Amino acid sequence: MEQKAQILTLGVRDLDASRAFYIEGLGWKAALDVPGEVIFIQINHGLLLSLWSIDDMVKEAGDVGFGDKAPTVAFGHLVESAEAVRETIDAAVKAGAELISPATERDWGGVSGHFADPDGYRWEVAWNPGFVVDEDGNVTIGEVQTE
Amino acid sequence: MEQKAQILTLGVRDLDASRAFYIEGLGWKAALDVPGEVIFIQINHGLLLSLWSIDDMVKEAGDVGFGDKAPTVAFGHLVESAEAVRETIDAAVKAGAELISPATERDWGGVSGHFADPDGYRWEVAWNPGFVVDEDGNVTIGEVQTE
Repeated sequence: MEQKAQILTLGVRDLDASRAFYIEGLGWKAALDVPGEVIFIQINHGLLLSLWSIDDMVKEAGDVGFGDKAPTVAFGHLVESAEAVRETIDAAVKAGAELISPATERDWGGVSGHFADPDGYRWEVAWNPGFVVDEDGNVTIGEVQTE
Repeated sequence: MEQKAQILTLGVRDLDASRAFYIEGLGWKAALDVPGEVIFIQINHGLLLSLWSIDDMVKEAGDVGFGDKAPTVAFGHLVESAEAVRETIDAAVKAGAELISPATERDWGGVSGHFADPDGYRWEVAWNPGFVVDEDGNVTIGEVQTE
């Protein structure tokens, strides 16, 4: 597994409050804003911050509530194919990770699964054809066309 | 405040367990490994993952335990001077952030302070002369020489 994260996801309790702070308050620009679901903001070369409704996040990333086991953050590790998602998760589990969810086809058109590190921090391994980084590090992310 | 993070810090309960997983298990390479304190790993262009002993993290970032208020993660936003640390934290508070700790001189030779976003996620604003990114995005980080 290459030592890389391209998306950092935070589970948020009120997406409108997050927008009020990051977009309206700090004046940051969204790469993609889907009201009621998720806001993506580029925060470095080839790197997106994802503010994701905790109600949706819990369905994919397991119990990412505010309990003892799982802090509400996930690191996105993008790979080039659905098969690579499976292989990467297998390798992480062999290295000592806990399997949270196996590679699964998602509504947005890609494939992803989750494992947890020793503290329960989630790594989401994903094949997402809608995530594109140009040579200057600028990221575009969009809905994947599946039909 | 520029929309940028260069360091992502996770509070970890057992740094040896983190090393066993990330370094020995996954085979990732540390940019800096200070046993008992912190491990830095580069995970993208100009971006470090910091695995920091939760006992030390709580002293700077406030209660980042596993309670309701503060998930154990902090985003590092680096600026060019101690004065810029103060100005950036002031601007974030004006945008709606909660002040956690004002700009403070640290043992490692820089200056940092923390604010929290609407969900309690910490942003550490820091001036760290020991953090250097070359034109290819490779990061070096070291102890700051202060005398």
